[in-house]
Amino acid sequence: MYLKAVQLRNIDQVPSIKDEVSRNMIVILRITPLAQKNIQDLKQTVEELYGFVSSIGGDIARLGDERVILTPPGVKVWRGIN
Amino acid sequence: MYLKAVQLRNIDQVPSIKDEVSRNMIVILRITPLAQKNIQDLKQTVEELYGFVSSIGGDIARLGDERVILTPPGVKVWRGIN
Repeated sequence: MYLKAVQLRNIDQVPSIKDEVSRNMIVILRITPLAQKNIQDLKQTVEELYGFVSSIGGDIARLGDERVILTPPGVKVWRGIN
Repeated sequence: MYLKAVQLRNIDQVPSIKDEVSRNMIVILRITPLAQKNIQDLKQTVEELYGFVSSIGGDIARLGDERVILTPPGVKVWRGIN
């Protein structure tokens, strides 16, 4: 299994991000580049990825102000104490 | 498998971080709190974790300025193009 850090610059990256999560990759998406360019596109991107990851049984979570974590099925983001 | 975000505040956290990676968790360590407090402790912590993760066949990589990713065996940090 791979963990990949990706810079999100454009809404056109959505299909390739979905493809990577489908191929069992954990994707850590730095959303700042798109956030600074087009907040509407960012919102749509995050909504699409949220729906996609939920539909395949993966997980999605914020990591600080700049990043979103996407996981394939079988990897969950820890939300416990500590 | 879980992915856990951890704030590194103290060198005393090293044993519990090692334990979590040993128990097959991916740990994303935000190093800034310790970096602002004691840079020598941070250096020693990262060296210890580097050695530990290498010894068990996991992986370690920086994520931006503030974070370090630690993975258990079987999860590698993608270092290819894109």
